[in-house]
Amino acid sequence: MNIHYLDNSATTQVCQEAADAAYRMMRENYGNPSSLHKVGIQAETAVEEARGIIADALNVQPKTIYFTSGGTEANNTALFGAAQALRRRGDRVIVSAVEHSSVYESAKRLGELGFDVQFAPVTDRGVVDIDALKALLTDKTILVSIMTVNNETGAVQPIEQIAKLVHKNCPEALFHSDAVQAFGKLPVKPKKWGVDLMSVSAHKIHGAKGCGALYIRDGARILPLLYGGEQQKKLRPGTESAPLIAAFATAVGFLNLSQNADHIRELNRCALEKLQALEGVTINSPTDALPYIINISVNGIRSETMLHHLEENGVYVSSSSACAKGKRSYVLEAMGLSDDRIDSSLRISFSRYNTTEDIDALIEGLQSGIATLQRK
Amino acid sequence: MNIHYLDNSATTQVCQEAADAAYRMMRENYGNPSSLHKVGIQAETAVEEARGIIADALNVQPKTIYFTSGGTEANNTALFGAAQALRRRGDRVIVSAVEHSSVYESAKRLGELGFDVQFAPVTDRGVVDIDALKALLTDKTILVSIMTVNNETGAVQPIEQIAKLVHKNCPEALFHSDAVQAFGKLPVKPKKWGVDLMSVSAHKIHGAKGCGALYIRDGARILPLLYGGEQQKKLRPGTESAPLIAAFATAVGFLNLSQNADHIRELNRCALEKLQALEGVTINSPTDALPYIINISVNGIRSETMLHHLEENGVYVSSSSACAKGKRSYVLEAMGLSDDRIDSSLRISFSRYNTTEDIDALIEGLQSGIATLQRK
Repeated sequence: MNIHYLDNSATTQVCQEAADAAYRMMRENYGNPSSLHKVGIQAETAVEEARGIIADALNVQPKTIYFTSGGTEANNTALFGAAQALRRRGDRVIVSAVEHSSVYESAKRLGELGFDVQFAPVTDRGVVDIDALKALLTDKTILVSIMTVNNETGAVQPIEQIAKLVHKNCPEALFHSDAVQAFGKLPVKPKKWGVDLMSVSAHKIHGAKGCGALYIRDGARILPLLYGGEQQKKLRPGTESAPLIAAFATAVGFLNLSQNADHIRELNRCALEKLQALEGVTINSPTDALPYIINISVNGIRSETMLHHLEENGVYVSSSSACAKGKRSYVLEAMGLSDDRIDSSLRISFSRYNTTEDIDALIEGLQSGIATLQRK
Repeated sequence: MNIHYLDNSATTQVCQEAADAAYRMMRENYGNPSSLHKVGIQAETAVEEARGIIADALNVQPKTIYFTSGGTEANNTALFGAAQALRRRGDRVIVSAVEHSSVYESAKRLGELGFDVQFAPVTDRGVVDIDALKALLTDKTILVSIMTVNNETGAVQPIEQIAKLVHKNCPEALFHSDAVQAFGKLPVKPKKWGVDLMSVSAHKIHGAKGCGALYIRDGARILPLLYGGEQQKKLRPGTESAPLIAAFATAVGFLNLSQNADHIRELNRCALEKLQALEGVTINSPTDALPYIINISVNGIRSETMLHHLEENGVYVSSSSACAKGKRSYVLEAMGLSDDRIDSSLRISFSRYNTTEDIDALIEGLQSGIATLQRK
């Protein structure tokens, strides 16, 4: 049976070139980037080249890029590092109600540690309610974290506008954005947008699981999450994962943002047209969502039931976020969706490797599911 | 020129089989281990198989193994996680004076956070002074962290004896051991030894950089360092680096502890014999050190000078720990070595890929270095 992998926001297949780069680092350029001799310096050179490539992709300086073990660590470093560094200046931390769990749960933990944590509500489109956010911004606010693109719906947040709002109202606060679902899919420009801290991840864009990066604006001071050696200016110690870092940069090098965007837009258009023609299917993603993600609900059929039905047809999608392992979506809840719609929601997410055949298989699977599973 | 890589305690070449395993996970078994469908479950199965292999190697249950991004994260999780979980019961944290920087600096940070941090002294052999340690154990002690094998000298600590001492005097305290330099080189048995928390790393034993694990005894409760998704019982959230985890387990599977031990013992014997015959060379490692590591000083020649001279001859060794990037060794300082000996120290470290030819090249390089560099 053909594999129709439509769960690319959970993770992607590592592209050939990135896997080859990791392999070369493991077998040939295997030194410790901190070693003072040539074997080490060769590995260090590869890591620094990779840092340059990630920096270029974000339109920032290489020295502002810190490699991490992934999006979760990048988000945790941003939240705990900023909150702790600025604790003397205030105690309010604001995150949106639809953040990924690695921001959401970190914020909740900051609440347990005595910070005044506020969750900014979103509209029924899943976009941060700007007036509500504005009302939360006090002179005690030290950190605001709003994701660039939502991982369940693809909703794109107005990051540049929010950054301006935060800096105008709270000049001392740091503004973080989790760009894990945005990076490599739309132009992401933290410096131009006024973002102080930004998280990105490799495995959502055909790099490998276990690698990400945090952008820290030059001059923004946060505390480390990890303590140890001299690596990465002691902000993120530990031997760099040179193989995964090289793979990350290679994957970024093989992204063709505009070409991919055209391809994905076409897939999205095609999928939406066919999905809207199916009886009982509602689109949960806003109309201006990132075209890589389509969130739907199938009337009367629980997410997992349909997920497994599609799986039997070789079609792989997700019920909400993979990290939630089937738990109820607080993202769709925050958008005010009914319980029925939340419990029957599915996330379809594309990569450049998808074709219209995958969409045909999806639609076929949904049709047969609707015919056989409903009213059971 | 042939490469004589004698810096295996800094990092090792990934073995063919482990690199192949990582490659397969990147290209073929690329699902997200948390996804509910088959593509995800296949990846999850690989991760759980790997967990079983690491657990077997430590003679513990798979559910006590938590994958991390490496030794630094494992050590940080142990120290911060244990200290914060037990804060109500006391505030004393004890680590040895010769811990790796990821324990040492974490302990110093705990000191800044208000914990009463004590550094247990070592003898001139680099082994923890048991009487001095005993004197530090109070009823306020909540955490003791002593490494299994020192990364600079190879000194083996009497972990089983220390564990007994800690548990007898401080029944509430957790005992952590950083076994990064020991795992895969000598039989490491945390459960049998009475160790509550133990850190191991992949890249010191022909796995890849960016992967490690923390053993947490069943029933021992620590707080997470990272917050986020449901992965690894929420103790270590974030998408598991399935490629590096599979590579780690594969590398462990290809270790032949007793066969390697014989080979390394022979290399060590041969090296020591020749090193001791060199005028001006002093052995800093204790006589009963792990044979994988030999720390020496070369009279009158600074570490970096000799390191680069050896490099020109294709011989790669280290000046103290790679993570320290050339900084002065606090490990040798704690052993009471003179400044001259510390400033001229070198670490030679073996892997199963080394041969007596590497030792011949080392000795030749040292000889020519001593002849040409001394008295400059």
